[in-house]
Amino acid sequence: MSKLDNLLNDLVIANRILANEDVVDAYGHVSVRHPDDPSRFFLARSLAPEFITRGDIMEFTLDGAPVGTDKRAPYLERFIHGGIFEARPEVVAVVHAHAEDILPFGLTNGTPLRPVIHSGSFIGAKVPIWDIADKFGDTNLLVANVEQGQDLAKCLGQNNIALMRGHGFAAAARSLIEVVRMSVYLPRNARALWRARQLGGFVKYLSQGEIDARNRGYSPYSVETWRAWHYWATKAGVGDMVTRPDAPVAVSKAPAKKAKAAKKPAAKKATKGRRK
Amino acid sequence: MSKLDNLLNDLVIANRILANEDVVDAYGHVSVRHPDDPSRFFLARSLAPEFITRGDIMEFTLDGAPVGTDKRAPYLERFIHGGIFEARPEVVAVVHAHAEDILPFGLTNGTPLRPVIHSGSFIGAKVPIWDIADKFGDTNLLVANVEQGQDLAKCLGQNNIALMRGHGFAAAARSLIEVVRMSVYLPRNARALWRARQLGGFVKYLSQGEIDARNRGYSPYSVETWRAWHYWATKAGVGDMVTRPDAPVAVSKAPAKKAKAAKKPAAKKATKGRRK
Amino acid sequence: MSKLDNLLNDLVIANRILANEDVVDAYGHVSVRHPDDPSRFFLARSLAPEFITRGDIMEFTLDGAPVGTDKRAPYLERFIHGGIFEARPEVVAVVHAHAEDILPFGLTNGTPLRPVIHSGSFIGAKVPIWDIADKFGDTNLLVANVEQGQDLAKCLGQNNIALMRGHGFAAAARSLIEVVRMSVYLPRNARALWRARQLGGFVKYLSQGEIDARNRGYSPYSVETWRAWHYWATKAGVGDMVTRPDAPVAVSKAPAKKAKAAKKPAAKKATKGRRK
Amino acid sequence: MSKLDNLLNDLVIANRILANEDVVDAYGHVSVRHPDDPSRFFLARSLAPEFITRGDIMEFTLDGAPVGTDKRAPYLERFIHGGIFEARPEVVAVVHAHAEDILPFGLTNGTPLRPVIHSGSFIGAKVPIWDIADKFGDTNLLVANVEQGQDLAKCLGQNNIALMRGHGFAAAARSLIEVVRMSVYLPRNARALWRARQLGGFVKYLSQGEIDARNRGYSPYSVETWRAWHYWATKAGVGDMVTRPDAPVAVSKAPAKKAKAAKKPAAKKATKGRRK
Repeated sequence: MSKLDNLLNDLVIANRILANEDVVDAYGHVSVRHPDDPSRFFLARSLAPEFITRGDIMEFTLDGAPVGTDKRAPYLERFIHGGIFEARPEVVAVVHAHAEDILPFGLTNGTPLRPVIHSGSFIGAKVPIWDIADKFGDTNLLVANVEQGQDLAKCLGQNNIALMRGHGFAAAARSLIEVVRMSVYLPRNARALWRARQLGGFVKYLSQGEIDARNRGYSPYSVETWRAWHYWATKAGVGDMVTRPDAPVAVSKAPAKKAKAAKKPAAKKATKGRRK
Repeated sequence: MSKLDNLLNDLVIANRILANEDVVDAYGHVSVRHPDDPSRFFLARSLAPEFITRGDIMEFTLDGAPVGTDKRAPYLERFIHGGIFEARPEVVAVVHAHAEDILPFGLTNGTPLRPVIHSGSFIGAKVPIWDIADKFGDTNLLVANVEQGQDLAKCLGQNNIALMRGHGFAAAARSLIEVVRMSVYLPRNARALWRARQLGGFVKYLSQGEIDARNRGYSPYSVETWRAWHYWATKAGVGDMVTRPDAPVAVSKAPAKKAKAAKKPAAKKATKGRRK
Repeated sequence: MSKLDNLLNDLVIANRILANEDVVDAYGHVSVRHPDDPSRFFLARSLAPEFITRGDIMEFTLDGAPVGTDKRAPYLERFIHGGIFEARPEVVAVVHAHAEDILPFGLTNGTPLRPVIHSGSFIGAKVPIWDIADKFGDTNLLVANVEQGQDLAKCLGQNNIALMRGHGFAAAARSLIEVVRMSVYLPRNARALWRARQLGGFVKYLSQGEIDARNRGYSPYSVETWRAWHYWATKAGVGDMVTRPDAPVAVSKAPAKKAKAAKKPAAKKATKGRRK
Repeated sequence: MSKLDNLLNDLVIANRILANEDVVDAYGHVSVRHPDDPSRFFLARSLAPEFITRGDIMEFTLDGAPVGTDKRAPYLERFIHGGIFEARPEVVAVVHAHAEDILPFGLTNGTPLRPVIHSGSFIGAKVPIWDIADKFGDTNLLVANVEQGQDLAKCLGQNNIALMRGHGFAAAARSLIEVVRMSVYLPRNARALWRARQLGGFVKYLSQGEIDARNRGYSPYSVETWRAWHYWATKAGVGDMVTRPDAPVAVSKAPAKKAKAAKKPAAKKATKGRRK
């Protein structure tokens, strides 16, 4: 498979995982930026993520217009993806979803959604709440045009996640694997925080230092990250679509090293190379 | 399929979706008004919705009497449907169910059930609570005759949903697809509100303007609405029963137009025509 | 099938339903009194209810001793069943289980477990909490002998359900169908009450008159009751074991009559007759 | 099967049960000490527990180093297992997992996690919370070296479970069956306590005497314990891997005796002998 084929294959897997992990249902979507043309991105046509195959993927420019003569119905809210890809050149993948357990945190400012569990660290220290009404007044709450997508991206800023009041969330990440991971653990972190609050006493959040340490150590193709991707894909029935590294994975007795390696672009490239 | 066949086919699908989405279990039911005779409606015989096929559907007059010589056991609470169809000529479909997560809101007036999430907007700004004891004193709580059905319909008024204290809810809508959608998202809206309340602070409900905007934009056969119907039906094992539009759906770059079109009867008819 | 065969067949179905509805897991059990000898009852050997077949059922005297030379390992807590059958001659079936969502109500007296939803009415107006420590001090909490079973039965009194502190519940009913129904709806009633309490305001319980009205109208072989039994059995994979009434069920336009009929033993017998 | 083969077979079963019971997902692991060499233990290679087969099991020394030339990628957090096996010579099996419902109790000191239900007694009267930040400052929260594993073991002390702040828990037990049981019932105990707290009033915990009584009566191969192991394994799809006692199990009319027998090593050995 070519690099692009591989990416679109992973986009199908991402759709299936998000459906199987109850992050999306009939609604919600995941996109990936074109690896060779940063002004374009890939996103499925208007279809429930659980049913998406390679043939359902469309290509868009950042203003949400389909590339070429593709006449299939796109997702109405593709402007979320375009807006974020435009504002954040380093972002490679975007998810928008309505995962139920995060909704309460977008309805009230009583308890800010912040990381409390290690797997939730990737949502970042701050999760802003975007309220479409602030700028656009009474709407149907959907991000239905370029201007609304840009406004959401502005609220997101340099954060990884923005909650959308009464609606859902948008997540931006450096890879498809990362954005899926973030989207799966975001509701878990929300539930842990919600319940901890009910137990009384002082809730201890992850410190900024802990969030930073986890972020530094993150690598999309580490053994640990790959384990979850493979697990989720298999549970979602697309385990056979997962392209595994073809080189044997060495036993690492010094996990600290791995974290450093992940920060070097060269090392990242090498890891990717193993996947073809 | 004829128009009527199509409708009864959709009634079977509606039953299966409600069962699969945990809105009904052995109890609860969905009805549709006869398209050619507003004084009649269709409702299955006394059977768990998960098992219902075309042959299980009976026809009733608005007083809950079976049409013709049908001797099969009907649902005891068919008077809910008759009462609402009688009081609300524009209503096409009715659901009665005991979906667990809405029950708490019918037991206490501590937190009114109102829309907080965009998919919950269709329940309407006000959800009255009907208490059968107010007029009928100590009963078994079931709506077991015409008078009780009429009293429930009176409490429902021009709203879309009425909670029934200690029992469940009744929903009335303009189409089967809409009443199913409302019934699926009602419990989700209830859970989001229940949890938000526990997070402390001020809970922001949808504004009246937002509810109105969503309602204006709603079309039972839009690409977005259809997506959920098809998704739910497929998950419920009756995806093959779904009659799809046979014309290709054009890519709409101006979603605002769609909302307007949906308000024109002609456009609606055209959409329906595609389904045969 | 003989009357006894039929009853033991239903006991197998009851086991499977309770397992599938998450009332029991590896632990918990259901028994039925011998129809011809009130001093004996049937209960499976020590096996998870999900696996139980006709051959796994043992016969016991009220002191928990196996009848005859049956050397198979019985449930340790069979004394719960013996104790209740001894104290309550009219009781035909008993369930003991640890259904998770009722446990909190046995741990605190902060909110008494009482019926709030119509399907919960059968638990009765009062649900006492039995604390084994009150009489037996520090034990392993299991009802491991005749004396403990009798003490639990004494606490149960004329009620339908007793919670067992830190352990679970015991339910006593007039038929297998009823005890299963009660065991399935008990946790649902508990959840509705637990959540309603969190919504603030005054929680409205079922009135004594409503509980009585529902109890009067109950018939184990009514169309409505049968519907749930058939539904649960089918979901549990034993739908084919259900022995259905072989006479066609007439359309009843006067449901009130049914309630009265159910109170006449003759009517009940006639209904049973239809099942062979 | 040899004794060792049997143990590794049980380790595979333990992995599958923990996955199926939602104690672990892609992350979390279970280990068992080498029966003939207390300085070694068995733990799978880095793979989701749901996929683990006999061939995936690796052997480690207590410092987390793979035995021999095994180059496969191990779990990063194997130091949890090594640390506990080193500090607690009587411990035979260890679990580390992130079971969601225990997480809140590690985030706040508002409600200590203690046994409230009989099946939760095995977690022990005291469950300390280990905060990696206390000694190691800002880390990625993972137990990534020998020193961190030893510090966790020190906090665990002579208890059965330690919560790990913002991360999960570690459990130590006398057998694989016991550590699995503890890990399955720990979240259930947590949920019961969390909900009881919301019902208001005074929550009654198990007394020390009750915890002791249950512990004295525990035997890993009793009929009751075996029932759950067999049940969980079957639900996890590995029921055929369970090696059952080949001698018929006698009907015990004196359950008190069983508890005593379990304390005698000879009796325990005899029970084990039946398993080959």
